[in-house]
Amino acid sequence: MESLRIIEIVGTAAFSIAGAFAAMEKKLDVFGVFIIAFITALGGGTLRDVLIGKVPVNWMLDLSSAVVVLITTVTVLFFKSVIKNYHNVLLFFDSIGLGFFTVVGIHTGIALDLHPVISISLGTITACFGGVIRDVSLSNIPLIFQKEIYATTCIFGGLIFFILSWLGVPKMPVEIICLVSIVVFRLLSVRYHWHLPTIYKPEQPSS
Amino acid sequence: MESLRIIEIVGTAAFSIAGAFAAMEKKLDVFGVFIIAFITALGGGTLRDVLIGKVPVNWMLDLSSAVVVLITTVTVLFFKSVIKNYHNVLLFFDSIGLGFFTVVGIHTGIALDLHPVISISLGTITACFGGVIRDVSLSNIPLIFQKEIYATTCIFGGLIFFILSWLGVPKMPVEIICLVSIVVFRLLSVRYHWHLPTIYKPEQPSS
Amino acid sequence: MESLRIIEIVGTAAFSIAGAFAAMEKKLDVFGVFIIAFITALGGGTLRDVLIGKVPVNWMLDLSSAVVVLITTVTVLFFKSVIKNYHNVLLFFDSIGLGFFTVVGIHTGIALDLHPVISISLGTITACFGGVIRDVSLSNIPLIFQKEIYATTCIFGGLIFFILSWLGVPKMPVEIICLVSIVVFRLLSVRYHWHLPTIYKPEQPSS
Repeated sequence: MESLRIIEIVGTAAFSIAGAFAAMEKKLDVFGVFIIAFITALGGGTLRDVLIGKVPVNWMLDLSSAVVVLITTVTVLFFKSVIKNYHNVLLFFDSIGLGFFTVVGIHTGIALDLHPVISISLGTITACFGGVIRDVSLSNIPLIFQKEIYATTCIFGGLIFFILSWLGVPKMPVEIICLVSIVVFRLLSVRYHWHLPTIYKPEQPSS
Repeated sequence: MESLRIIEIVGTAAFSIAGAFAAMEKKLDVFGVFIIAFITALGGGTLRDVLIGKVPVNWMLDLSSAVVVLITTVTVLFFKSVIKNYHNVLLFFDSIGLGFFTVVGIHTGIALDLHPVISISLGTITACFGGVIRDVSLSNIPLIFQKEIYATTCIFGGLIFFILSWLGVPKMPVEIICLVSIVVFRLLSVRYHWHLPTIYKPEQPSS
Repeated sequence: MESLRIIEIVGTAAFSIAGAFAAMEKKLDVFGVFIIAFITALGGGTLRDVLIGKVPVNWMLDLSSAVVVLITTVTVLFFKSVIKNYHNVLLFFDSIGLGFFTVVGIHTGIALDLHPVISISLGTITACFGGVIRDVSLSNIPLIFQKEIYATTCIFGGLIFFILSWLGVPKMPVEIICLVSIVVFRLLSVRYHWHLPTIYKPEQPSS
């Protein structure tokens, strides 16, 4: 359980940073930056816990996640004048959060004895929906619906997780390989504009 | 219970199709199309179940809904080049889902012994909110807030349901009359741009 | 408990009015106005109750909140031609709802023995999220993310609440001072465009 808690804290910090930069792109005030960082970091896990009925949600009972968000936001605000390109920092930390939170979400499903397909869905929800709520709140088009591969990396990472587990690889290497694959794959797909082959003909009139 | 399950499956399939076409209008990749189909088909029922506390929500415990969404989405992707006007197909299947899911939601309220007004609300939430989440995710103005009659047909259908039940009409005809009325009424209101009488004077400066 | 129920009803009525005017700004039909009034008035409390696991949510078991929304919406529709500036009325009643619902949400946290920081968060969620859901549904930028001070007044009011309580001030004066401070502070910040000191340099290229 120890390694999972560390993974969760790293993911929380990464998503707080991504959220803080998204809020600063929109010139929100300090409280707005904190609120968006909080929503980004805890929104996906909150949605997951509400869907499985684990309420009151964990951040109400244990303040440590809120403290992580607070520390990261203050750090971001402190170093923000050093950063030139907010959007690239956002994309970088969002990718890290994506990998770490997918692993956390998959474990939630396993702990409830849910089907692997649903466990992968819970990983994807945990990883993706904090960012969706962030983007909808800021009136941005959610990253998940943009051209580059996004949720697909979580599903792909989840498959790696279960295949390695079935092959008998121990828990910690499985977690590390799963999260590293997702982070690397997502970063590469942003960097090189990877996307799934299009299903639309160039000239197709869609409406 | 059997007839209700069939109604739910038909509604799920209809909303998946509507969701898939909404996603294809926005040129999402295959996974995006599947995720939007899933959200549209299961979002309303998920919100309903979270509000009444029926968690873990059903699609986590029983994969059949996810399978219905998968099959419908694959079918849609297969036949998509035959379709000329995505938006009309979307509106057609959205209307069907609206009727079928209103009946499902009303039954949830009845099973919990809730007041008919709340049961009709649950029917409306089940029927309307998958589409609202779909439209907000895709940065569209939700159909429910557009000019043509939408949620009103669910309320109207719910009234028919309870009036017929009070008159002693058996369960299955009540369900069929309720859902057919909603589908037909919604389709006609789209086709002929029916809307409630306006409450705004033409020249009124609203702000 | 009596005073808290009165505070909740006043807050519900104020947010219904704010919601109804937001919907009329967008020229929604009568049912749209009612639905948006309902979402605005009950959305924040519903999110809070789902997060703490108090389900089925209260408005399903007790129709009085729905009746308050219905009466207020009908009244608004009746008097609407007298009103010149919808947006100012919206901002005025939104401020009143903000103060009253913060107190209601703080009490929910106290009743669950949650940490004061989390109780203040629950107050802020109860007060702010009905408006967020309203604004996202209507494709407006949420008030909470606009320039003037918004969520910050709830946090500030929550601090006053706990400081006065620790000083031994009795419950009712604490509630009244807390809610009046929030309403007055928010109204002043709208009127005089108060905002937190900016953290952005004027020339900063943010992306």
